[in-house]
Amino acid sequence: MVNFPIHISILGGGNVATHLAREFSRFSEIKLVQIYNRSLSKIVDLERFTSITDDISKLKKADIFILAVSDDAIAKLAGKIPFDDALVVHTSGSTPMQALPNSRKGVFYPFQTFSKQKEVVFKKVPILLEADNKKDLELLKSLAKLLSDEVQEVNSNQRKALHIAGVFVSNFANHLYVQADRILKEHQLSFDLLKPLILEVAEKVQTLSPELAQTGPAVR
Amino acid sequence: MVNFPIHISILGGGNVATHLAREFSRFSEIKLVQIYNRSLSKIVDLERFTSITDDISKLKKADIFILAVSDDAIAKLAGKIPFDDALVVHTSGSTPMQALPNSRKGVFYPFQTFSKQKEVVFKKVPILLEADNKKDLELLKSLAKLLSDEVQEVNSNQRKALHIAGVFVSNFANHLYVQADRILKEHQLSFDLLKPLILEVAEKVQTLSPELAQTGPAVR
Repeated sequence: MVNFPIHISILGGGNVATHLAREFSRFSEIKLVQIYNRSLSKIVDLERFTSITDDISKLKKADIFILAVSDDAIAKLAGKIPFDDALVVHTSGSTPMQALPNSRKGVFYPFQTFSKQKEVVFKKVPILLEADNKKDLELLKSLAKLLSDEVQEVNSNQRKALHIAGVFVSNFANHLYVQADRILKEHQLSFDLLKPLILEVAEKVQTLSPELAQTGPAVR
Repeated sequence: MVNFPIHISILGGGNVATHLAREFSRFSEIKLVQIYNRSLSKIVDLERFTSITDDISKLKKADIFILAVSDDAIAKLAGKIPFDDALVVHTSGSTPMQALPNSRKGVFYPFQTFSKQKEVVFKKVPILLEADNKKDLELLKSLAKLLSDEVQEVNSNQRKALHIAGVFVSNFANHLYVQADRILKEHQLSFDLLKPLILEVAEKVQTLSPELAQTGPAVR
């Protein structure tokens, strides 16, 4: 049994923190208690959603503390959360859950690329969950299912594999776009020419397996 | 001045030939005269659009003969077209226009990946044109502009660069999808998890430059 509204605090001020704050504020089942970031100037924009602070000693009590910070800051920051009975989760693909020193711990991993300039339709974003015990997992599930239709439990190994696969289809693919852009520029051609092809290739694997989708210029 | 309808014959029976035949048949300004392929069984489906043949000696006269065949078949097949006064074009990214032995020659290169299973919205497909003389270029432009809003003249070097860039964002990107799928399968995870990310990465560069779009798992 989960008691609504779920009280949540976010730690972090980057793209993930921003998108989560915006999304959480849309649900009456969620009470966004506070957003912490070591630099206050980076999160002044988020004050429209809830109170903000850069003082870790002023953290208010919440059911779940969500760490949306860089991987190397997770363990240290988590150790500073002064509520032993709260659930502390991180949002990282490549960090094991056990990196968290807290007694109640978990992972809330939204699998998407987030940028400040672009809204994200959360309903289709897979959210991968992990927790040490059933009750905390249920709590995370209740939260995640408000946001997304694609909620799944995975262990730390699986999440790491997913993270790496994500680097392939996101960063490496985008790197190919950068290289292609460079080739075109050398020949006085616009990147615009590539846009329909890029989109079609991505759309094709929405319904076909990537093995079957392999066609186009090189196969021709 | 171009006289409509433009009489066109297609040589070839693959994805490009099929998509062009289907698209041409939608316009009253285009008269699809005939489709030739060395194997008739491969083009029986196309008989709904026009007459078909596997006998090169039965080719009917047309204003433009469009070769939609594999790169290594272009020159040989073009040499068999028995109409000296017709415009002969190929649809290849990597083949120079001068590979055509015909007196009137050109290139009609629709820059998209075509698959039998999926319809293509031609209006947004860039069509890259090349011709030896102005009049033939005008004729190709009149044809291409019926199909697409993105018609551009490029020389054989530029077209080759575009072809290579296309291999990067299409075949290489799809290869990354295949590799990512393999990683997930090894960890009992579904490729479905990657689909929203793949789409978002492709959509991002529709409005942002790929340099600016570089974010996601690895940058986090």
